Amino acid sequence: MTDEMLTVEQARAAVLERIHSLGTERVPLTDAGGRLLAADLSAPYDNPPHDNSAMDGFAVRFADVAAATPTAPVTLQVIEDIPAGKVPQLSVGAGQASRIMTGALVPDGADTVIRVEDTRAQDDGVDILEPEEEAGENVRCRGEDMKAGEALIAAGTELGPGEIGVLAAVNQPHVLVGRRPTVAVLSSGDELVEVGDTRGPGQIVNSNTPALGAVASACGAEPVLLPIAADNEAAIRASVEAAMGCDFIVSSGGVSVGDYDYVKKVLNDLGAEQILWRVAMKPGKPLFFCLLQDIPYFGLPGNPVSSLVSFLQFVRPAIRKATGYLERDWSLPQSTARIEHDLVNDGERRNFLRARLRLSSDGQLTASTAHRAQGSHMMTSMLGANGFVVLDPEQAVAKGGRVTVQILGDVA
Amino acid sequence: MTDEMLTVEQARAAVLERIHSLGTERVPLTDAGGRLLAADLSAPYDNPPHDNSAMDGFAVRFADVAAATPTAPVTLQVIEDIPAGKVPQLSVGAGQASRIMTGALVPDGADTVIRVEDTRAQDDGVDILEPEEEAGENVRCRGEDMKAGEALIAAGTELGPGEIGVLAAVNQPHVLVGRRPTVAVLSSGDELVEVGDTRGPGQIVNSNTPALGAVASACGAEPVLLPIAADNEAAIRASVEAAMGCDFIVSSGGVSVGDYDYVKKVLNDLGAEQILWRVAMKPGKPLFFCLLQDIPYFGLPGNPVSSLVSFLQFVRPAIRKATGYLERDWSLPQSTARIEHDLVNDGERRNFLRARLRLSSDGQLTASTAHRAQGSHMMTSMLGANGFVVLDPEQAVAKGGRVTVQILGDVA
Repeated sequence: MTDEMLTVEQARAAVLERIHSLGTERVPLTDAGGRLLAADLSAPYDNPPHDNSAMDGFAVRFADVAAATPTAPVTLQVIEDIPAGKVPQLSVGAGQASRIMTGALVPDGADTVIRVEDTRAQDDGVDILEPEEEAGENVRCRGEDMKAGEALIAAGTELGPGEIGVLAAVNQPHVLVGRRPTVAVLSSGDELVEVGDTRGPGQIVNSNTPALGAVASACGAEPVLLPIAADNEAAIRASVEAAMGCDFIVSSGGVSVGDYDYVKKVLNDLGAEQILWRVAMKPGKPLFFCLLQDIPYFGLPGNPVSSLVSFLQFVRPAIRKATGYLERDWSLPQSTARIEHDLVNDGERRNFLRARLRLSSDGQLTASTAHRAQGSHMMTSMLGANGFVVLDPEQAVAKGGRVTVQILGDVA
Repeated sequence: MTDEMLTVEQARAAVLERIHSLGTERVPLTDAGGRLLAADLSAPYDNPPHDNSAMDGFAVRFADVAAATPTAPVTLQVIEDIPAGKVPQLSVGAGQASRIMTGALVPDGADTVIRVEDTRAQDDGVDILEPEEEAGENVRCRGEDMKAGEALIAAGTELGPGEIGVLAAVNQPHVLVGRRPTVAVLSSGDELVEVGDTRGPGQIVNSNTPALGAVASACGAEPVLLPIAADNEAAIRASVEAAMGCDFIVSSGGVSVGDYDYVKKVLNDLGAEQILWRVAMKPGKPLFFCLLQDIPYFGLPGNPVSSLVSFLQFVRPAIRKATGYLERDWSLPQSTARIEHDLVNDGERRNFLRARLRLSSDGQLTASTAHRAQGSHMMTSMLGANGFVVLDPEQAVAKGGRVTVQILGDVA
């Protein structure tokens, strides 16, 4: 442990080098949306498995119908009905057609499907009124979507609806995904009451625990919210021990330099290996990180916004590394944006300003930090924010200039 | 019902004018992340409720310490310890200080908090080594975060971690949110087998139901996946009737013009009021929409990608309107992007091309559709796509030109 104030990058690296994968679990496909694929997926077979019809219509030999017109239709003998799911029994010969439904196997002999709209029924045949432009139209060929052995989805991909569809198409009822970390959220302090309880004089509602639980959920983890611990060593120790069944522990408050900070004493007594405790950022300077019997423990600042910002900068990357995300996906998505007003950081720490990001009509990302006051104890400063403007010490930008931004939500 | 092919806008308007709010429900705050706030929230009281300390340190009268320096410190008598949650008993007079913890109430008489780092302990007093720059430093004033009656969060806001924190800070253990719609997902077809079942000759795995369930979840709805119905009227009728306990019904396939399409017959027999069935878009032309005893029923195309695209263009806005989202949030976020290659739509229908969107290093949104083949029966064409390029009939754009895009996921 060092007493130096670390940069954000140094602190994040110090955290991440101590984070390991939590392994994998197999979940039903229907629960796999939003989870992280744990093993590369390749196609086990061609899909579609056979040539099949893209339309309801008639399977024909193109050469037979190439000259058909509405006024001079070509009449073909209909030899078979082929609904989807049935295997054709007859080969289509010259002058013949089989009625075929979307998704049904194209019979031997036929090379093209004429849409039912371009035909007219006859007694035991069909008039083809308009041929397609070339042979092969309206036939979906075997392997067109995927070929056996083809790489489909790489490990480390978050599973959206398209990926779920592909996993279904290759007949995987269960999927191996990164295990979802559990995150214990602790709070301590005699000034705190639980949400919904009556506040005594000098007391405030504990807003950090629900907010940190919500951000843990949004990062793909499963929050475990513990009750407020009273400000004494025994209560805090009991709370920390209760949290040790989880993969991660976060607490807020109790990590600065005052007399009443029992949290660090409890952690020391439990043999925690302390890694860092101060980071050059604002909000969020105090950041205590240790390994508590191998469990990553983050002591976040007590100010509501500081704790959320610190969670997003340090705990989120740790959660995502442990889940199996690729390194490029650990930190918040970052880009640059055009700033809508002058901005300056005259302090000595990197600023993370709550920002309103949007894409202007010309597709240019813009940022404003003017929608709310920015105090680190102001939970309301997060309202309406879908990103951060990141400003280094001494950095000043004029309206219209470019700033680094981190993206938290929808930007359009 | 009309036989005309409607534009996407006409079809969406025809759907949306028949969608009504599903009302609200009260959920625990800890389950409210990602839900939609149903009623405007304003502050019931000032927060912080009292002036309190932003630091661990000493509450003082600024005038007493303004001249202090490390070499000529000012010594004050410490009259009280004020941990957070305790109400101060003594007023701070001239030459006095009270030891105070972060979050604790500032005692009467004091106007400033000196950080513990800028002090040195004495026997029964404290040396102030460095004053702050002005009176009021390190004091968080009553009402600084929110003032009683101040508007905080508007109805129709999706609740992120910051909003959850604010709801906690105003002591709301339960939150009134838009009710989450249930969406029944139907499939029918003798060519289909359930994911995990053995495929017979001519059969394929039903990938649409899991994919549509995943996209319904991603839109904030609760999917109810029904088993595959066989291709006969009785089975389809039983499946549709089972679906009628849900708020929305979506089926895929079975809505084109072929002989084997029992779905429409069943719906007619059940008294469905048909609204539309063809939209000028690609993929996704066939789109059947009806009210089935007031339940919105969407008959989506059978092709995997067509069904997903149609869901996102029509069902998602309906789900979001029913949930209580503001009108600006019903459709997918839309912007313009710089296209990375030439692109042309030489057809007569609006194209929705699966695209890879990203923010370039200069903060400019760019789009490419070249990552995968675009066939509407190719579920793999959704892989890696985080948006659509929307191209109107006859529209051609050259590399570097601007196109309209819809955003599906993270773009950085």
